[in-house]
Order: sequence, then structure tokens, then C-alpha cells
Amino acid sequence: MKKKLQLIIDVDGVLTDGSFIYDNKGKIFKKFGPHDSDGIKIIKNFIDVFLISADKRGYEISKKRAKDIGLKIFYVPEEKRYNFFENIGFKECIFIGDGHYDAEILKKVYYGIAPQNAVDKCKKNSNYVTKVNGGNGAVYEACLHIIKKFNFN
Amino acid sequence: MKKKLQLIIDVDGVLTDGSFIYDNKGKIFKKFGPHDSDGIKIIKNFIDVFLISADKRGYEISKKRAKDIGLKIFYVPEEKRYNFFENIGFKECIFIGDGHYDAEILKKVYYGIAPQNAVDKCKKNSNYVTKVNGGNGAVYEACLHIIKKFNFN
Amino acid sequence: MKKKLQLIIDVDGVLTDGSFIYDNKGKIFKKFGPHDSDGIKIIKNFIDVFLISADKRGYEISKKRAKDIGLKIFYVPEEKRYNFFENIGFKECIFIGDGHYDAEILKKVYYGIAPQNAVDKCKKNSNYVTKVNGGNGAVYEACLHIIKKFNFN
Amino acid sequence: MKKKLQLIIDVDGVLTDGSFIYDNKGKIFKKFGPHDSDGIKIIKNFIDVFLISADKRGYEISKKRAKDIGLKIFYVPEEKRYNFFENIGFKECIFIGDGHYDAEILKKVYYGIAPQNAVDKCKKNSNYVTKVNGGNGAVYEACLHIIKKFNFN
Repeated sequence: MKKKLQLIIDVDGVLTDGSFIYDNKGKIFKKFGPHDSDGIKIIKNFIDVFLISADKRGYEISKKRAKDIGLKIFYVPEEKRYNFFENIGFKECIFIGDGHYDAEILKKVYYGIAPQNAVDKCKKNSNYVTKVNGGNGAVYEACLHIIKKFNFN
Repeated sequence: MKKKLQLIIDVDGVLTDGSFIYDNKGKIFKKFGPHDSDGIKIIKNFIDVFLISADKRGYEISKKRAKDIGLKIFYVPEEKRYNFFENIGFKECIFIGDGHYDAEILKKVYYGIAPQNAVDKCKKNSNYVTKVNGGNGAVYEACLHIIKKFNFN
Repeated sequence: MKKKLQLIIDVDGVLTDGSFIYDNKGKIFKKFGPHDSDGIKIIKNFIDVFLISADKRGYEISKKRAKDIGLKIFYVPEEKRYNFFENIGFKECIFIGDGHYDAEILKKVYYGIAPQNAVDKCKKNSNYVTKVNGGNGAVYEACLHIIKKFNFN
Repeated sequence: MKKKLQLIIDVDGVLTDGSFIYDNKGKIFKKFGPHDSDGIKIIKNFIDVFLISADKRGYEISKKRAKDIGLKIFYVPEEKRYNFFENIGFKECIFIGDGHYDAEILKKVYYGIAPQNAVDKCKKNSNYVTKVNGGNGAVYEACLHIIKKFNFN
């Protein structure tokens, strides 16, 4: 019997290029990329998708983007990230992550994907590394890859 | 007899680098590139040119850029894009596009061009792929290519 | 006897990465790069330096940057650019330019320099092409190159 | 006996991509990168870390970022930079720098690190050059490198 899989996508460095644009009041902008919303729209027909972010100061920005592309988002700080996945069940998750604290999770999930610009140990621990960078179509590429890999269509 | 050709240019990822800069209120900026307005100014002497965009939330930004470079722009969502081209006549169009829903159109038009950063299937379906990325001179390069290819001068 | 040389630097695509960031009111930001102000500070000891720009809508932004790095700036639209250089004397000018209308001038000046991201015909017509892109240290590299090439120190 | 080492990090071009985003009032934004705050959080367990910046006009922006990642920052203009390090003691410093005036300091410190996008003579004078650019994870990579190199854990 097929498991009920979930696709969980980290925001910064995956849906964005990882940069934080600051003015003298603080973190004010993030840069989201092309094609990703197309990929998400297609894959939502086959699997549940949601976003997670550990970025507290930029959370309202991420939340607005999540709303615009029709996804739920959860604030999951680094120290709670492992437990968060454990509660869902590592083996029920496809995860796209890029940062220091994502590496261990990418190793344990059902299927781990890292964008090209992820830190080295994320790329080593992943089943698939996208050809393009986060914020440059990595999620679109990952969605097409998942659909093909798991015969979703 | 020579057909009356039209040059149709997609905005996001072609005239821009495809990124969407967000603050906590939403999509607020787009990043347009160098040289493209020079290419457009030259090619307008030989062929009608206009812009299309499927980006509703960022449409006012695209519209302002269109005005600054002296081009008309039409809002054409993905699901209406195919019909839009059918009404004009695929074989009357030179089209520059980069996204998931552009691939099928690029295949059917008279001459299809994809920027270097387009999704793979756009590049496969195009007659010409620019050396440079969208938002980095792709439209300028495409304009010079068209002028040479079709002996416009 | 040594000629009185002038170093003339185009702004967009040379001191910037060539991009124009737009909101729905128009061109609002430009992105200037690292190291260039250091290079300019050093070369000003040996040669007169000033900026030119053909960008009318973004001129106030360029003017502010020019002021911050201590340089004069002149608005010289494309169609007046050739005459502008002719009045100074092509052979009195070292010019750094990147765009369609700079190519012919780069060919005629005493010494022409194009940043790596310049359009092809600028690179062909230049005496030196910087390894790095405009807005990414091209002017710094050009300044060090000029100082070495012409034994300024 | 082990010396009391300090890790000193330059801001522009190291924690940022080196760019300065301007509007018509002046320098308004800087672009900070991914992963660096994770690296700093880890290395702070082993060594004192602080930031320096020679950028006066953008200092309030840098100061806000420093506060967000829990680091002290000092304004040290280029002409005072050499003395600043001399007072601390060159051989007590690990330094990450990228610009014209950092090259001489990188040569004299206990251990010098340059990001990939640093000017050539910084890279020549450094003990380690990061694979990635400033504002793109260079400080994260440098932190992991230092921890491994000096057996901090």
C-alpha cells in the first residue's frame, strides 16, 4: 500500500536565493524565484505540500509569499525541526532543504532533495540535487523530478 | 509575399531575471536588465513588438516598465495563453518565452526563442536559445539575432 | 609630451550590474558594486575621472552615487554621445563602456575598456576586457589595469 | 600555551555580496546571505567574533544586521585599519576580508581568509579562499574550515 507522502519545502535558500535584503530598520525584503509556483500548482494534484521556515524576523515576508502561491507555512526553528519531522514521521516526508540544520533531516526522510546552492552536507545527504539554485527554479525542477520519479501522473 | 510578423515578448524571466522581490505586503519589485530597451528600439523599425504577462500581482510593475520602453502590454494568464496565440495565428508570431506554459507555444510559433535561464522544455522547443539570461540582455541578443536571421536591415 | 588623458566611465552596466529595479511607480533602485570606489580614489591621483549616463529616468540615482564617490556626472543621451567624445577629442579619452551605442566610441578612443558583461561588439572593439562584471568590481580592475599599463605610479 | 585568538569579519563583500543598492537619496539597502548566521552561532562557542566595517554611509544597515546575528561591530575606516589590527596584535587575529585595503592585513594576521569574490591580492595573501562568494555562504564555509583546521571541537 502506498504511504501518504507529504512534500515539505524550506523557504530561505530553496524558494528564495537565500539572501536577506536589509535597510537600517532590519530585514525588509526577500527574493523569490521563477517557475516554482508553476511546479507547486502541478504537484499539488498528487501530494500535500507545505512550507516551513526557521526565519523569525522575515516570517511575515515568507507568509505573504506562501499565501500568494496557495500554501500553508509553519514556523519551525532549527532546534525544533528534528522533532517536527519525527512527529510527522520521517518516512512520510519528501523534504527540500538547504541549510546546516537540514542535513540530518534530509538523511532520514523518505526522499531528500537539496538545491544546487545548499551547504555541502545537505547535498551529500540528499537523494537528488537540483541543477539550478534556490530562488532560481529549484522547486520547479524538484517538483518535475518527484512527479517522474514516483510516477505521479 | 512576406507575412506580417509580430514579436511577442513574455515579461518575467525574459525582460526580468524572473525574481519577485517581496516585503511583508507582497510582491513589490522586479529587476529589469540592461541593453534590452536598445534592442527593442532598433527592432521596432522592422516589426511590431508587444509584451505579455501572466503575472497578475506584479502587473502594475510590468506595465510601468512597458510604458518606459514604449511597448504595449497585455495580461494573458497561462490558461488563456494558447488561445491568445491561436487568435493571432501561431505562424505570424516570433515569441520569446521561458516558463512551463510557454514551451508548447514556442513549438508552434513561426520562430521561438528562449533565454538561457528558461526551463528545459522551452529551450528544447525553441529555434534559438540566447547565450545570456533573461534580465541580463536576452532580449537585446534576441533582437539582434532576429534582425540578422530574417535580413531585416 | 604626454597627452592630457581623461578617464570617462559609463554608469549603467559598468558601475552597476546593469539592472533597473522597478516598483509600480517606475525605476526606483540601482545596484552598485564593491571595490570600485577604492579604484577610483587611487586613480584620481593620476588622471581626471568623470561619469556619463544616458539613463534619464534613473539619473537622480546615478547622481547620488556619483556624489558619494566624489565624481562629476554628465547626462549624455545615446544620440549625443558620439559628438560629446568628439568635442573632448577621442584620442584624449580612456573610456569604459558596455552598451550598444558605446561600441563605436570604444573603437575610436585612445584606450577602450569593456566589462565582462558588455555586449559582444563592445568587447570586440576594446583594448581590454575586465575579468569581472560591471557592478562586481569591473571599474576597480580597470583602474589597476590602467595604472599598470600607463605606468602611472 | 594556546593564544587567545579573535575572529574578525569584514562586512561588505564578506557578509554581503558587496553590492550597495541606491535610490535617489543614497545607499539604502545591503544584501546579506544564507548560512552565515548558522556558522557564527557555532564558532562563537570556541572563539570571540566581531565585525568591522569601513562603510560610513551604510553603517546603520550593517549595525542592524550585526545586532540580529548577535555580534559587535566597529567602524574602522581604511586608513585606520592597519593600526586597529596592530593594537589587537596581528598574530592574535583570524581575519576574513575582501577589499583593496584588506590585502596587507590578511598577509600579517595569524590566519587570513578571503571569499571567492575578493580582489586578487587578497586571495594571494590569504591562507584560505572560500569556494563560495561573500553574501553566498562564505562566512559559514570559513567558520567550518576554522573549526576543523584548529581542532576547535
